[in-house]
Amino acid sequence: MEIKVTLAQTNRTRPQDSALGFGNVFTDHMFVMDYSKDNGWHDARIEPYADFSVPPSAMVFHYGQAIFEGLKAYKTPDKKICLFRAKDNFERMNRSAKGLCIPQIDVDFVMDAMKKLIKLEEKWIPETLGTSLYIRPTIIATDPFLGVRASYTYKFFIILSSVGAYYADGLNPVKIWVEKEHVRAIRGGMGEFKTAANYAASLFASEEAKKNGYDQVLWLDGIERKYIEEVGAMNIFLLIGDELVTPILNGSILPGITRYSVISLAKKWGMNISERKISVEEVFKAHEDGKLTEIFGSGTAAVISPVGEIRYGDKVISIGDGTPGETAMKFYNALTDIQYGKAEDTENWLEVIG
Amino acid sequence: MEIKVTLAQTNRTRPQDSALGFGNVFTDHMFVMDYSKDNGWHDARIEPYADFSVPPSAMVFHYGQAIFEGLKAYKTPDKKICLFRAKDNFERMNRSAKGLCIPQIDVDFVMDAMKKLIKLEEKWIPETLGTSLYIRPTIIATDPFLGVRASYTYKFFIILSSVGAYYADGLNPVKIWVEKEHVRAIRGGMGEFKTAANYAASLFASEEAKKNGYDQVLWLDGIERKYIEEVGAMNIFLLIGDELVTPILNGSILPGITRYSVISLAKKWGMNISERKISVEEVFKAHEDGKLTEIFGSGTAAVISPVGEIRYGDKVISIGDGTPGETAMKFYNALTDIQYGKAEDTENWLEVIG
Repeated sequence: MEIKVTLAQTNRTRPQDSALGFGNVFTDHMFVMDYSKDNGWHDARIEPYADFSVPPSAMVFHYGQAIFEGLKAYKTPDKKICLFRAKDNFERMNRSAKGLCIPQIDVDFVMDAMKKLIKLEEKWIPETLGTSLYIRPTIIATDPFLGVRASYTYKFFIILSSVGAYYADGLNPVKIWVEKEHVRAIRGGMGEFKTAANYAASLFASEEAKKNGYDQVLWLDGIERKYIEEVGAMNIFLLIGDELVTPILNGSILPGITRYSVISLAKKWGMNISERKISVEEVFKAHEDGKLTEIFGSGTAAVISPVGEIRYGDKVISIGDGTPGETAMKFYNALTDIQYGKAEDTENWLEVIG
Repeated sequence: MEIKVTLAQTNRTRPQDSALGFGNVFTDHMFVMDYSKDNGWHDARIEPYADFSVPPSAMVFHYGQAIFEGLKAYKTPDKKICLFRAKDNFERMNRSAKGLCIPQIDVDFVMDAMKKLIKLEEKWIPETLGTSLYIRPTIIATDPFLGVRASYTYKFFIILSSVGAYYADGLNPVKIWVEKEHVRAIRGGMGEFKTAANYAASLFASEEAKKNGYDQVLWLDGIERKYIEEVGAMNIFLLIGDELVTPILNGSILPGITRYSVISLAKKWGMNISERKISVEEVFKAHEDGKLTEIFGSGTAAVISPVGEIRYGDKVISIGDGTPGETAMKFYNALTDIQYGKAEDTENWLEVIG
């Protein structure tokens, strides 16, 4: 399929790196293609970033049939543009698509389209360490129809956003609220897919956590409400004695690409890494026994995010001394060194596109 | 707040009643208002039905912060326009709003706005029994922002659709697929709110059911996967011996307004009505014992929908003789007689607006 390119009449200016936040500065162009039963994915185009014209009856507004991905392009010191495990994102997008009855995309084609778009938008990639070009591929259901069924038409788009560090406080440890009442996802539900529903389900508890002075919610399993699952914006790792533990994928946890990368590095480094069920009780017991030395999150947005405090009902524990733990920093440095082209890409995770 | 009215330049023609389906014919105008932190709900207007201009980064596309309602206006034989328990819908919408961190609406104001819109669109209300004007109030999150949090801006809109009977086959009994693997909602989740997420979560199993020749999915509880919950588009009632049973609201079941109406009528008629937990095992046992005489669904779209067959794994049972059961018909007739102004509105459910 050919990609038609329509250039923007005026090109805006990228804000200074120091002024960048997360996800509010968009570039001059976007990639869009449409799907219909008769034509499959068609009308692929790069065009000026602009509002979509969407009927009030579009199914995405009513029935949430929408999936997305989040990945980043990095500028290396020698001005190369690099992508980190990008193909894994589009493969996950196809798994999400299947779960939401959305037609599959051609991974190689959308990879090419994305690279073409990024090269066109090169000036939007900030260069300071920690900054990047955030890439948001999205698919939404567009049938103008109020009956409940999978849509017959869809829009796929990729928008780009120049971003600073995800957490405004940088790598300062975050405070995590273990949610006792609300549930994000459940086995047999949508939790393993990157779909709008999971984020909608997270809002109420997240606001509660914020009101109580906590940055993020740690979700428990929806059945026994005993086992820790994920933090919504990231997966979670705990260093207990010499064991690095992360909850095993169970259908209600998003299979994070940074999560896989941490596991790979841990194995390579000869660490004692486990994917297993871990209860919140075990976490607090390990702390009591003095064995819980670090907790950190992993995700595309923040890469690695050390956790300094956890609250579960009335119980509050502090982890570490208020600075990022040694293990968290080791993973953060190793991953960002690969992403920014400062270390050898021994795992073959990087793709240079310009 | 004043409602500014802008009339459409050209008025389209309503299709013949016999040509109407569900949710694909929209009227000439809609009601819209916007929300911002500084101005609250503002800019209330009735304007020509048209596409919205929505940024690709609008939060509703990514994080599913969206709620809606579904209700109907009916034309009586003496040409009055009637609403059925409409205020209950907007009160439920406010409960959904709370659950999704969406600002509350002024129920009296939106009721008035809706009535004004319906009167303007009177010619779009079909008059044949079973047809109606379907009303879809909706709220979507509109911040152009990719961080995960509740949006600061929203759009509320009401669109209207001339509809025929929800099920093309009319009151012919439907076939129901009891879903063993997928879960719609769970205690502590979004199930009791009318939000996009629940419908997204229902698509995969619904498509599977359709492929197997079934019309709808009957969802089980997400924890034990033993207790029946609802059918996605409707709540469910079972007549076992002389007991009319419907699953008790538990946080993962939508509190249907037609469900409440059936319960009220059942009580008024002196029936033995129970809201309680009921396992799928009990349903099959009751059938085996010859005590399960009827199953029917209740919902705004279909009003009452008799169930003629249920499949659970390899087990299939037929209920009734292929025609709607006596109890289902009694509720259907009582409710539609009230809705179409053919019977006295003893419960004070009807509101005449023109």
